[in-house]
Amino acid sequence: MPSVTYELISVCPHTAARRGRLHTPHGIVETPFFMPVGTVGSVKTVGSEDLEAMGYQQVLSNTYHLSLRPGADLVERFGGLHELMSWPGAILTDSGGYQVMSLSKTRKIDDTGVTFKSHLDGSMHFLSPERSIEIQGQLGVDISMALDECAPYPCTRDEAAGAMARTHLWAPRNLSAAREGQAVFGIVQGGIHEDLRSESAGFLTGLPFDGFAIGGVSVGEPTELQYPVVSFTAGLLPADKVRYLMGVGHPRDILHAVAAGMDMFDCVLPTRMARHHVMYTLLGRKNLRNLEFAERRDPVDPGSVFPATARYLPAYLRHLIHAKEALGARLLTLHNLAFYARLMEEIRTAIETGTWPELVERYRLA
Amino acid sequence: MPSVTYELISVCPHTAARRGRLHTPHGIVETPFFMPVGTVGSVKTVGSEDLEAMGYQQVLSNTYHLSLRPGADLVERFGGLHELMSWPGAILTDSGGYQVMSLSKTRKIDDTGVTFKSHLDGSMHFLSPERSIEIQGQLGVDISMALDECAPYPCTRDEAAGAMARTHLWAPRNLSAAREGQAVFGIVQGGIHEDLRSESAGFLTGLPFDGFAIGGVSVGEPTELQYPVVSFTAGLLPADKVRYLMGVGHPRDILHAVAAGMDMFDCVLPTRMARHHVMYTLLGRKNLRNLEFAERRDPVDPGSVFPATARYLPAYLRHLIHAKEALGARLLTLHNLAFYARLMEEIRTAIETGTWPELVERYRLA
Repeated sequence: MPSVTYELISVCPHTAARRGRLHTPHGIVETPFFMPVGTVGSVKTVGSEDLEAMGYQQVLSNTYHLSLRPGADLVERFGGLHELMSWPGAILTDSGGYQVMSLSKTRKIDDTGVTFKSHLDGSMHFLSPERSIEIQGQLGVDISMALDECAPYPCTRDEAAGAMARTHLWAPRNLSAAREGQAVFGIVQGGIHEDLRSESAGFLTGLPFDGFAIGGVSVGEPTELQYPVVSFTAGLLPADKVRYLMGVGHPRDILHAVAAGMDMFDCVLPTRMARHHVMYTLLGRKNLRNLEFAERRDPVDPGSVFPATARYLPAYLRHLIHAKEALGARLLTLHNLAFYARLMEEIRTAIETGTWPELVERYRLA
Repeated sequence: MPSVTYELISVCPHTAARRGRLHTPHGIVETPFFMPVGTVGSVKTVGSEDLEAMGYQQVLSNTYHLSLRPGADLVERFGGLHELMSWPGAILTDSGGYQVMSLSKTRKIDDTGVTFKSHLDGSMHFLSPERSIEIQGQLGVDISMALDECAPYPCTRDEAAGAMARTHLWAPRNLSAAREGQAVFGIVQGGIHEDLRSESAGFLTGLPFDGFAIGGVSVGEPTELQYPVVSFTAGLLPADKVRYLMGVGHPRDILHAVAAGMDMFDCVLPTRMARHHVMYTLLGRKNLRNLEFAERRDPVDPGSVFPATARYLPAYLRHLIHAKEALGARLLTLHNLAFYARLMEEIRTAIETGTWPELVERYRLA
């Protein structure tokens, strides 16, 4: 009996979207859903009580960061990341591979794994499939991601094929390193090439992973390349496991991927954009720094009410931003995360009630 | 009928402490009380909803900062600072004089007022008693503080006397500039000299101020000089008006001043110390950066439970601090403000129940 299982509830009459439930050791997560990114065991500026208040049931955290500080051994001594960050819901960690490639300047990758230099103190570390899964086991999370190789964008077909081959080489090693009951997800690679995506999905879905992710679509790819890859690859994933699109995205990207049959998402956009003064609204993204909000009383987004920020005037948020008050970033973060939470809730409702076209119309500008 | 009135409820059988109520246009404030400092219309890292949750009924904001940004005209167009920051409770503003002296490098003071250069953009501004009260009227606050001259510490007796003389010269000009119903408090000066404090209290309490403050005791004065000045001056203030000790202080300083008969306090310490990783506890101040908290599970302060931070392990707070996560400063700010809110609540209870000695013993190390 795997520790994470997917239950299908209903399907959309208009698209390939599906409504379900993910059963995890830390409760049920209604799908499709979005995970806020808590890189170091903290979603920037907000606490676990805030995430609970917004209705989030699962968050993502980063193996690379946590393994360097405070260290997987310490987290394990505390009984896991849930205990350390006081988070009662589910947690997924990435494998650490993506951060090794993006944050560490000195690194060497071969079939054994990746040797890299810590961005904190320059110390040398080694990450392999076995080590990544071991660390994620120490963190005690609900879902561990397999260590893969993700080719950068743009890359040649040969580079994409090479990264896929190493991902496949590592896949069984990830699985064999898992503790009893540790759920591990495989990641389909292959870049923008349909034949490689087919080969990757075919190989990985033959292994006993507890869920499958589409990797490598958010690393700088433009929409016109990303969407066909997502649509094509989603159709290759088994219906009885949950499907996770990594690192995506804007509301429109999520709507597209849900319609293609994807269930899980994570992205730094709502939280990072908030720290750059940008608010997601049904009328599009608004930069609160702009002069047009200096004396604005009416809500920036007339169609929405968010408890976290509804009491504050746009003019006040702009004042906080200009005065460089930390509260400004916090309130915009709460707003954007509440916007994403509501988006996912409305997605789930639209699938159940057969109102997908109306939902897409409602988020047309978002 | 003044817009701010003081109602005495009971007196302490052990000290000169008194329990009362301050009636303001924005509700009743139970005295003695502490005001969190919201310099630019925001108590750093916390929102009005957090202040409400901790039971605060009044906050302090800074005329100097608000007049430069977003500007008193804008605040007035929004219906006042309460509306701008969405704060339903009472607000007191300082006169701006202290910030002019401490933040502006170029300044010139004479009997007409102070000319100073903005710390934001270098533009030149002029602050007089009339202008300060006018700005505070535009901000629409419940209590305006008179513009005074506060001599730095240390200073000569002549400098203290000079600052006092100008404070007295300006006192009636502050009052005559007030709008109908605008409450203005006078500030007793005189440094560490009892005869000057007597002269200042005698002069100012002859004017129709709505309350009286003791100024100039927190500008670097050591405890052994501060305490006698507070005790002596508190005894000179009328019993039918509220008494405000400006800029004080640590819990022990507040306990001393309440015992001397003071009712109101403000200080940046709980919020500023939080941003320097320091937590107030019944066992004294603790720096959460320290290694001793790296694996600490038990509460730092075994005698206290604060809803805002009780769910988090000390080890997690330390991790947030080391990872430079904004949430760390926020959680410590919430903790310290909750600590101060509870201190004041227990002060009020101890006065009513005649248990002052037990209270002082309880906060012996704080």
